[in-house]
Amino acid sequence: MHASWKFVFRSVRLQRRLTQALEIPVTRSSPAVVKLESRRLFATSSSKLRAVANPNHHSDMAPKAPKFEIKTPKGTKDWDGVDMVVREKIFSTITDVFKRHGGTTIDTPVFELKEILAGKYGEDSKLIYDLADQGGELCSLRYDLTVPFARYLAMNKQVTQIKRYHIAKVYRRDQPAISKGRMREFYQCDFDIAGVFDPMIPDAEIIRIINEVFDSLGWQGTYAIKLNSRKILDGIFQVCGVPENLIRPISSAVDKLDKMPWVDVRNEMVEEKGLDPEIADKIGKWVVLKGQRDLLEKLQQDEALAANPSMQQGFADLDALFTYLEYFNALHTVSFDLSLARGLDYYTGVIYEVVTEGSAPAVSASEAAASSESGAKSSSKKKGPKSADPDADRSDDPTLGIGSVAAGGRYDNLVGMFSGKTQVPCVGISFGIDRIFSITKARMAAQKVAQKARKNDVDVFVMAFGGGKDFTGLLKERSEISAQLWDAGIKAEFLYKVKPKLPNQFKAAEQNGVPFALILGEDELAQGKARLKEMGLPDDHPLKEGELISLANLAEEVQQRITQKKHLDSITQQAEGLRVVHGIKGEALRAQIAEPEAVEPATTEPAQ
Amino acid sequence: MHASWKFVFRSVRLQRRLTQALEIPVTRSSPAVVKLESRRLFATSSSKLRAVANPNHHSDMAPKAPKFEIKTPKGTKDWDGVDMVVREKIFSTITDVFKRHGGTTIDTPVFELKEILAGKYGEDSKLIYDLADQGGELCSLRYDLTVPFARYLAMNKQVTQIKRYHIAKVYRRDQPAISKGRMREFYQCDFDIAGVFDPMIPDAEIIRIINEVFDSLGWQGTYAIKLNSRKILDGIFQVCGVPENLIRPISSAVDKLDKMPWVDVRNEMVEEKGLDPEIADKIGKWVVLKGQRDLLEKLQQDEALAANPSMQQGFADLDALFTYLEYFNALHTVSFDLSLARGLDYYTGVIYEVVTEGSAPAVSASEAAASSESGAKSSSKKKGPKSADPDADRSDDPTLGIGSVAAGGRYDNLVGMFSGKTQVPCVGISFGIDRIFSITKARMAAQKVAQKARKNDVDVFVMAFGGGKDFTGLLKERSEISAQLWDAGIKAEFLYKVKPKLPNQFKAAEQNGVPFALILGEDELAQGKARLKEMGLPDDHPLKEGELISLANLAEEVQQRITQKKHLDSITQQAEGLRVVHGIKGEALRAQIAEPEAVEPATTEPAQ
Repeated sequence: MHASWKFVFRSVRLQRRLTQALEIPVTRSSPAVVKLESRRLFATSSSKLRAVANPNHHSDMAPKAPKFEIKTPKGTKDWDGVDMVVREKIFSTITDVFKRHGGTTIDTPVFELKEILAGKYGEDSKLIYDLADQGGELCSLRYDLTVPFARYLAMNKQVTQIKRYHIAKVYRRDQPAISKGRMREFYQCDFDIAGVFDPMIPDAEIIRIINEVFDSLGWQGTYAIKLNSRKILDGIFQVCGVPENLIRPISSAVDKLDKMPWVDVRNEMVEEKGLDPEIADKIGKWVVLKGQRDLLEKLQQDEALAANPSMQQGFADLDALFTYLEYFNALHTVSFDLSLARGLDYYTGVIYEVVTEGSAPAVSASEAAASSESGAKSSSKKKGPKSADPDADRSDDPTLGIGSVAAGGRYDNLVGMFSGKTQVPCVGISFGIDRIFSITKARMAAQKVAQKARKNDVDVFVMAFGGGKDFTGLLKERSEISAQLWDAGIKAEFLYKVKPKLPNQFKAAEQNGVPFALILGEDELAQGKARLKEMGLPDDHPLKEGELISLANLAEEVQQRITQKKHLDSITQQAEGLRVVHGIKGEALRAQIAEPEAVEPATTEPAQ
Repeated sequence: MHASWKFVFRSVRLQRRLTQALEIPVTRSSPAVVKLESRRLFATSSSKLRAVANPNHHSDMAPKAPKFEIKTPKGTKDWDGVDMVVREKIFSTITDVFKRHGGTTIDTPVFELKEILAGKYGEDSKLIYDLADQGGELCSLRYDLTVPFARYLAMNKQVTQIKRYHIAKVYRRDQPAISKGRMREFYQCDFDIAGVFDPMIPDAEIIRIINEVFDSLGWQGTYAIKLNSRKILDGIFQVCGVPENLIRPISSAVDKLDKMPWVDVRNEMVEEKGLDPEIADKIGKWVVLKGQRDLLEKLQQDEALAANPSMQQGFADLDALFTYLEYFNALHTVSFDLSLARGLDYYTGVIYEVVTEGSAPAVSASEAAASSESGAKSSSKKKGPKSADPDADRSDDPTLGIGSVAAGGRYDNLVGMFSGKTQVPCVGISFGIDRIFSITKARMAAQKVAQKARKNDVDVFVMAFGGGKDFTGLLKERSEISAQLWDAGIKAEFLYKVKPKLPNQFKAAEQNGVPFALILGEDELAQGKARLKEMGLPDDHPLKEGELISLANLAEEVQQRITQKKHLDSITQQAEGLRVVHGIKGEALRAQIAEPEAVEPATTEPAQ
């Protein structure tokens, strides 16, 4: 083989130039193939060179550089490797919680008839992606999973009660901020309870589910559930004297209190929306308040509020809700927050969103404007940095936080908007996976958590030992033994090379952290044996050189070692608290280890 | 409570009319709520009636019937209940195989820049869904997972070798046939091996993966892998004298041999595509042949073919492939079939598709045309029933089969079409989940397999026992105990009712096949105990009435019973062969049970 290489590459310089042009390491390409093509190598142009480097080249499809940039659409990205492992761990953690509460999953199409989405999202409707009119129906990509679920309930009248979950992508033509998990294509994980039940029991279970999800993710102590009631908010607006037609616009202004101070919100109410300043000041007295039962009592002590029918319903709701949350041991994370309004039109009762560190922007838009030169003009404040290029990535914009990591509420009239008859009241929660993911990644980086996650799960790398001119490479044996392992459900790989070198095989196994090498050699095979070696053992370990196992019950022997190692690893991992997701809240874990008596049952980790 | 009902519903007839108008069973709505709203019931119109039936009604969003049909877009559907359980079982079976072979998953966006998809799909490009031009980039929904993967590799030059899998939806504006699993939105499950390796080893592993997937699905003996090589096919066309510019069109015609007889295909070649009839007859001699090594030898014995360079490469490929498939014990399902051509342009080497009963149409289009009156005109043949309404469902069209259930091949130049430089040769397979699903469902129905699948997995239904005017309903206790079970990772539910009746609680548990009832009663609670009852035990079973367990270690005790029952159930299920997916091939399973010596290791079932 070396002889033919010498024939092909007559000088070292030529060889270097050629391998650069081929853009593939020489060691990875097949010598047989290079030999086959070698005669043509010298007679061709450099683009032709690249083509013949490929053993399966088809003459009519030679590669040409395309005339446009190769990338994903703005606001979208590919996910691979360790990111996918972390993301799938988040999915499975959430799915486990959903199933624990009796959830059943429903899958709806990615696009809906355009009319289904129309009139459901208020001002945000402009962010809906439409499909081109190519004849037939007009369709749009779904904006959330809630409206398709309501459409499903309206179509399937036999479904009067359901706990449903759905994990799927949704689409919004919003300005992206990718590193903050604000994407144009992003996952939502929704859990909804539909049906007529005794009031507030399902609502309480949804809040309990939120707690279980974030606790399972290891976020104990780092998140809060802001909660309010549309009925209480509407009651306040009515009592303060907001005209009926201004209730939703004023509600939208209030919702911005997490991003800007009251003075800016008041400005928007009065100057933009034309609200009487006195009414705005009355509102301002209430909407900045936060608490729990204490705040509910404070509201009830106000005579005007206590007499308002909408407020009365809201009182009754939250009073029951707080009681049920106590039963569920789920009240401690809840903050009754009168500034929470939520943008979507379809909510009718309790509303909530989950915030964590990084949810709020680092600076408010008005602060940013004041500190910049153009800040003097108040008209430039409103638009802020968003007005520049609507497609540009805003990851570095300090006026943009990650936002809420989950949000939801009660929507009792949405199904009726489709069915016109059967009304199915619903309450639900939507988890923003990409934001949760970006926070998880940032915490892992900040705490320098060792990223032990692997891109795949292979347990055994099947290798050939040998060399010299009589060495066959044992491809037949590696193939047959891999097939035996696969038959037994064992994850196995081998190098796609007829005559591989042992160091290259070890390198491939090490690169991916494969825990076991199964080494085949002529002599051992003749005795009906092969050598199983655990990778990465210290030099003085008695099994450093592996152990000979019988081919007769190979799969069984290998499986036994894999199981044993996994068991040991899991004990070690638990001790170190280094699991991919569950390990991210380092302090919490250390506290658990240090003070085992403080561990609540919930934190002992359900799934796996 | 009954008194207030009597007050509200003064006559039986009125009550019936009202409950019909409300469209909710009276027993399900909360008496408290109905009482609250009762004064308004008589003063309102029937549409108002529906609104007040909802305790959380918001006055400004009263339901109105929309003016358009509420449905999913044509060629798409919602998936729920048992269908989702079967579908997810298929997903997990396939994913297990992919992981066993070292696959790592990559997630790409649902839409790509329009230019990325352009020029990749030949005639089928007209089936691509475009997004509307709303400013910014022009995008299209992905048509398959292969082109986005190639685009990913071109963008990520550091990835020179990868085994990747991806399970995701793709979009084609084709005429749908929903009951045959031909959808406009459908799942593909792809596995691809990219990189420069010794020839044909990865190709053989892909074929092995196909075998493992269908064997794991219980399809042993009912599927075949049709396999061919573009190089051999092109060699035949060249030797027969097909002009270079007609090679792809003639190839497309050959590909229809699974749907129509040779005489019709010959007609298309000669009359439509202008091929010399003598050349067509030469082609006809070859493309109807099927075999394995015998056919390869037959081709090699033909002097003209043996001298053709493309054919020589094809010979070498298939010779190596058949050898490696023998090593992998995966040759028995392969049929070397010279009629297989595949429509897509990007294949460069081996191509394959998996067929099963129902893949081919019941009758060919020409037979259907001949038996109908309009069959006399040959011009109407071509279009067939498809010409009518392109959006109509063709599920009942006998000229349309399910088609292949998996397909793929080698595509060595697709990455280079994007990068223009780095060429990354690839080989892959795509499983058509919706077609596999529709066949699975049809087999389950035909063999009357008991559909024991449940919509969720709840293990324990927590109930209150009691009655009379002092009965509190034990909502606090049911909530707290459910929370304890959830904390321990146990799937639990209870009725969302303050004072539920025992029969209604048992009914809810039975409807969903929940295996255990945990019954709380005042007396037992006072002793620190609750009654755990396994559902559905025969009357003479010693534990028919359940057993008292201590609240002190409740979760542990409950978990122990659940684990024990699952173990017993799994033994029973294995004996009956009634697993949702694995059980569908009744005969194969019975054969395995009857003749255990015939069971190959592969069929002993890997995953779970």
